[in-house]
Order: sequence, then C-alpha cells, then structure tokens
Amino acid sequence: MQINVSNRVSTLKPSAIREIFKSLTDPSVISFAAGNPSPESFPVDAMQKFANDIFEKQSTTALQYSITEGYIPLREEILKRQKEKFGIGKDFDTVLVMTGGQQGIEHTCKVLCNEGDTIICEEPTFIGALNAFRSYGCKLAGVPMDDDGINIEKLEEAAKANPNAKILYLIPTFQNPTGKTMSLEKRKACLEIAKKYDLFILEDNPYGELRFSGDDVPTIKSMDTEGRVIYCSSFSKILSAGMRVGFLLLHEDVAAKIAIIKQVSDVHTNIFFQLMCHKFLTEYDLDGHIAKIKKLYGHKASLMLKCLDENMPEGFTYTRPDGGLFIWGDMPKTIADPKAFIKELADNKLAVVPGATFMCDGEAVCHGFRMNYSTPSDEQIVKGVNILAEVAKRNLK
Amino acid sequence: MQINVSNRVSTLKPSAIREIFKSLTDPSVISFAAGNPSPESFPVDAMQKFANDIFEKQSTTALQYSITEGYIPLREEILKRQKEKFGIGKDFDTVLVMTGGQQGIEHTCKVLCNEGDTIICEEPTFIGALNAFRSYGCKLAGVPMDDDGINIEKLEEAAKANPNAKILYLIPTFQNPTGKTMSLEKRKACLEIAKKYDLFILEDNPYGELRFSGDDVPTIKSMDTEGRVIYCSSFSKILSAGMRVGFLLLHEDVAAKIAIIKQVSDVHTNIFFQLMCHKFLTEYDLDGHIAKIKKLYGHKASLMLKCLDENMPEGFTYTRPDGGLFIWGDMPKTIADPKAFIKELADNKLAVVPGATFMCDGEAVCHGFRMNYSTPSDEQIVKGVNILAEVAKRNLK
Repeated sequence: MQINVSNRVSTLKPSAIREIFKSLTDPSVISFAAGNPSPESFPVDAMQKFANDIFEKQSTTALQYSITEGYIPLREEILKRQKEKFGIGKDFDTVLVMTGGQQGIEHTCKVLCNEGDTIICEEPTFIGALNAFRSYGCKLAGVPMDDDGINIEKLEEAAKANPNAKILYLIPTFQNPTGKTMSLEKRKACLEIAKKYDLFILEDNPYGELRFSGDDVPTIKSMDTEGRVIYCSSFSKILSAGMRVGFLLLHEDVAAKIAIIKQVSDVHTNIFFQLMCHKFLTEYDLDGHIAKIKKLYGHKASLMLKCLDENMPEGFTYTRPDGGLFIWGDMPKTIADPKAFIKELADNKLAVVPGATFMCDGEAVCHGFRMNYSTPSDEQIVKGVNILAEVAKRNLK
Repeated sequence: MQINVSNRVSTLKPSAIREIFKSLTDPSVISFAAGNPSPESFPVDAMQKFANDIFEKQSTTALQYSITEGYIPLREEILKRQKEKFGIGKDFDTVLVMTGGQQGIEHTCKVLCNEGDTIICEEPTFIGALNAFRSYGCKLAGVPMDDDGINIEKLEEAAKANPNAKILYLIPTFQNPTGKTMSLEKRKACLEIAKKYDLFILEDNPYGELRFSGDDVPTIKSMDTEGRVIYCSSFSKILSAGMRVGFLLLHEDVAAKIAIIKQVSDVHTNIFFQLMCHKFLTEYDLDGHIAKIKKLYGHKASLMLKCLDENMPEGFTYTRPDGGLFIWGDMPKTIADPKAFIKELADNKLAVVPGATFMCDGEAVCHGFRMNYSTPSDEQIVKGVNILAEVAKRNLK
C-alpha cells in the first residue's frame, strides 16, 4: 500500500549525527562525531546504591504512573539549585521535568508555533532543535555568529524581516556545535531584541555547568523579569544521557500549556530516574562530581587543542572552547568540496560531523565541521588529529 | 507579557483523569477513577535483581545515549514474542520501542495526519488518544459501540462522510473506557473498511494480555497482509507503568518515518529500562507473572461486578469485561445532569471518571462513567460500590 505521510514530516531526514552514530560499528574508526558525555562521567556506584534504596523504600512510587509535570520534590530541588547557584528563577517561574532537554525544545515549539511561523536561531546550531522545529512546519531564520556569539545586527535584521517569528532559539554557553560562548553584552542585547519584537527566547543550556576555564557569564534567564525566557537544561551531561531526564524552567502560564502537551506525548518522564535525580541533588556531592567531569573535559579539550596547534596546516582554524563538548573547525575556502573532505576523513577512519548538518538549509555548502573531545580516549584524540592534519595537508597541495 | 499559544494547543484542556489523579490527595476518597495497574503487579524483587545485574555488567550501555529505534535485542525479543504467542508480525514489520504506548499513538498521528485530517474512533474512547489527535489539529469522528464493539454500519458511514480520514483508531480488546471486546467478525469488517477507504488502523492493545475469562480473539494486526495496521502496546500493564516503555509493531516504511519523529521528540526511550524489559523477556517467567496479574484482576473484577449486581438499583447498567482494567456504567436517562451525579459521588468520597471525558465532543452530555477495579483494594471496592448504589438510589427518587 501507498504510505502518505504528513506534510510536516515528508521533508524531514534522519539526523546525520544519529545516522553516523548508528553506522559507527567499525571499531577501528576514531569518532569525533558523537555528542556523548564520557562514560567515565557516569557515577555508576552511587547510582546503583540509590537504585537499591529506591527499590527498597519507594518501589510503588518508582514504578507506578506519576504526574505529568514531574516528581514534585525533584522540581523543587531543581528550582532551588538553579536559584542558589545561577540566580535563575523568579516567583512566576516553575520547573517541568522533561524526557531529556530534547523534549523541552520540541514541546516549546509545539506549544508556541503554528505551521509557517519562524524560529530565529544561531547558525550553525544544534541539529536536534532544527529538526524539531522543522517537524512542526516552522521556517528557520539562521543568524551568523561572531567569536563572542550571535551577530546582533544580523539578529535584528532577521527579527525585522520575520514578523511571524515566535521564538529566538539560543545556546549561549559552549554552543553546540561551535563551542562558542556569548558575551554578557550580547545576551543583554538578545533580550532587548526579544522584547522589542515580542519573541520568546528558548535558552538551551545543557553544557553550562561544564566550564573548565574562564568565568561564568550570567544566563539570559537570570535577567528575565517577565517570563520571556524559557530555560532548558538536562542531567544528560552531568549524570547520564541514557536515562533521559531534563527540565524546563519557565513562566508557570507557559508551563501549564506545555504540561498538557507532555501529557499526550509520554504522560510523564520515567519516574524511577526522576527519584534517582532527586537523590543526586539531595544525598550526593553533585558539585564534587561535576568538578571531576570538568577536570576530565578540560584535559581532553586541552589535549585536542594542543594536537591541533602542533599539527594543523595554515588555513585551517578552530574554536577554543572554555567548556562543553565541542570544537568547531573551519577548512579554507580553497577546498572546493567540503563534503568530499569529510568523506576522505572517514575513509581514513576519522569521523567528524559535516557543518552543513547544523545549517538551516541542510543542503548549503559549509566549510565547518564539528569535533567532540568528551568521548574519544586520549590516544584516539592524538591519533584522530593526526589523521585530520594529514588529510588537511594533502588537500592543500 | 501576553502568551499566545499555537492554534493546535489553544483549545486543548488537561485530561480530566490526570487532573482527578492530581487532586486525589484526600486519602479518605475511594478512587475508581485511575487507569493504573495494581502496585501488587510490580515484580519489584526481580526488577531490583536485574537492576543490579545491569549496573554491574552493562552500566555504560544503560546510561549512555542510545539509538532512537530502541535497544536491538529488546526489539527482536518483542517481535519474537508477539509472533509466537499472538501470530502478529509479517516480514515487512518491525518494532520501535516507544516512551509508553502514549508516544506510539501521538507519533503515529504526527507522522500520518495533516492539520484538519480526520481520525475515526470508537466512542467513547481513550482520552489520551483523543487529546493527542486534537494536539495536531485533527478532526475526530466518533462511532458508537455495540456490546461486541464498534457499530460497523455507522463506521462505514463515517468513512464515507470523511474522505480526508487517515486513521481508524481502535482498542479492540478490553476497550478503555468500556471494557468491551470486539468480535472477530467485526475485526475483519474493520480491516475491510480500512482497505476500502484507504485508512490506516491504529490498533491499541495495552490490555490484551490481561484476559481473565473467555477466549482470546485474534488481533486485527494478525490479519494484516499489507502493513495497514499499526499495532501499539506496552509494558505498563504487565511490568511497570512508571518506567514508560511501550512499543509499536508496524511496517518498516512507516517505522522509518516515526523513528525520525521520535529522534526530535526524546532521542530515545530510557535505555536502562529497555535493558530491564529485555531481561524480563529473556531471564524471567513473564507468562507466570502475567498469570498472577490476571488472577488478581479477575478476582477484583468479579468482586466489583458482584457488588454491583447485589446493590445497584434498576435503570443502572454496566459492562462485564473479560479482562483489562475497566467497567463502564450507564445511568438512566431520567437523571438529567450526569455531571451533577458524578459530583455527588465525589462529595460522598467516591471518584469515577465522567463519560463525557471519553467523547469526541468533550462538552457532550454523557450518561456513562468509567470505573477501575485494578487499583482499589477489595475493601475499597465493596465500600465504593455501596456509595455508588446509595447515591444512585437517591437520584432515582
């Protein structure tokens, strides 16, 4: 029989990264293509202990249906921690537990945007968000980035040019895929533009706690006085990605709408792991644990940057992140076919993610590529950069 | 600031059941309003043992990002079990692990229907499905039910009257909310009508394994020779609802589209509990466990029916389910305001779900109400039916 899918889905393709991830079965391929936290960062022993506690003392709560908004003590602890540590959250704000940050992004779009509405975003940006927006028939308006974040003039142009824009989607800190952090001045300017053009800001901050150098920059949400900023984060990068527990911190009126949408989407997030997260927030030295992850990622980022500095030929550039998981590389424009370059890397057993993946127009020619340092071993980082440098030199001849 | 939500969301209300569930904090209220499995049915000890096994032997797999379609060994075991036990699944079929059956329903709608398309369904039917369909701006065409399932003549009328109908949504076995089971003849007729009018059938079967009397009736999916039937089920009613693990069994071409949508929705289902389910399918006497649940629910259903038979005044009727979780009651039409009757029950500390909740037009007057017997204790069942009978008699005077 003929399968006719909905218009919103018909043009959507699987995420290149997920597809690369699926095909990475050849163990001899070094992957800089993942967005995964390091398995070394999983607190397995504590998690096992907490799991046994839950089975022994809270098994009915942990295995029965629960409420859509999330386990109330967890929501309270998240709110408390965000307020104490990051100054995030006003009286009108509440927390919704989501099935990963991805669900927070997808649901925000479903609730705020009609088909044909525009979402303005940094370009390049997170493919998972782009595809979520596409899946609701939204138009995407990408704004180029400077070293200190989104270009504010171009942002205002985009806001002016798109009167049906509803959301400004931003990853201000250790952006995926570039690793860039937006300056405080630009954060303030984004909020002003959002006010001027009546946009919601969806501030996606999955990596914010993973700073290994430089000083924290206040989140946009911490400056939000009217509920214009929807703040999205998750436990994926600090505890476990596989458990799928994230959260939105947002105005309670928007939260009420998103809860209705979540109810019809998955009823609620796995409650066992909500209890687990609550234990990590109340019975564990989470900050000490995060300090260890930061040290690990700081080491890995330094190593990758050192290898790049020592080996890469002139013409290739790359970002120097202060945290998060990613370095963005740019190849010189003299390389006519960036896709062929990425393919040549893969043939030489190094996987990186082609930059076009992160563009609003996925078919655009993009000379950038994303490299991840949290997943590969030290040895793989050294070896992988060597492959990159060799292929790079070959392509400059 | 003014919050303008999308058109598709603006008319959507929270599920009455979830709202009732949320407000059921008064411990003196007897609830027949839940759709929960009995906590007695959770295999806590085995689950704890399996959890420890997973932490000790598969911790990285269990806590890291995983693939969207689901843990491959689990998908294979589900396919195998469905084929062996229920004759479900052709060569073109595959399994997608979903974050509960609810996600299977929601994603099927997102992938197959444009805004304004029609979904035909039994009436009354599962509120979670109705709201998922509403959340994509679908029109709902409800078809009344006879004792042996959907009225086939009315179904054909609805199919004829709605040329933009895409999906026929059915819960053929132990239907929620009525507890009715569709006859084999009607199942065949539904499939014929679906072929004639080119509809997909979304066969929702969360309770199918919980038969405590009578003989199994083949699923519609088992008669599907062309991939027209999308079969949805879950582990919620046989292992744990709180873990949110369900599945779709469907044609691989539709599955590929749904996987793309799931990728942008929650990336994948909690992988720890996918490993858990795999263990229950391979290292546990799942059939023996289900036999215990059936015995428990059979006992509770009999008890509730016995209490109803002995106490209810003439004019009130109720279904006699052979499995599942629900009995549907109908009050006589002489009761002018069914909502006031339900409210009077609540004032007397018995919660049931008003029938209007399950209607395509949620504002319709409906003299039915749903009663659940899996969650209340035996004592609560006796006491609750007594309250119901007293209020019923009072309202007939």
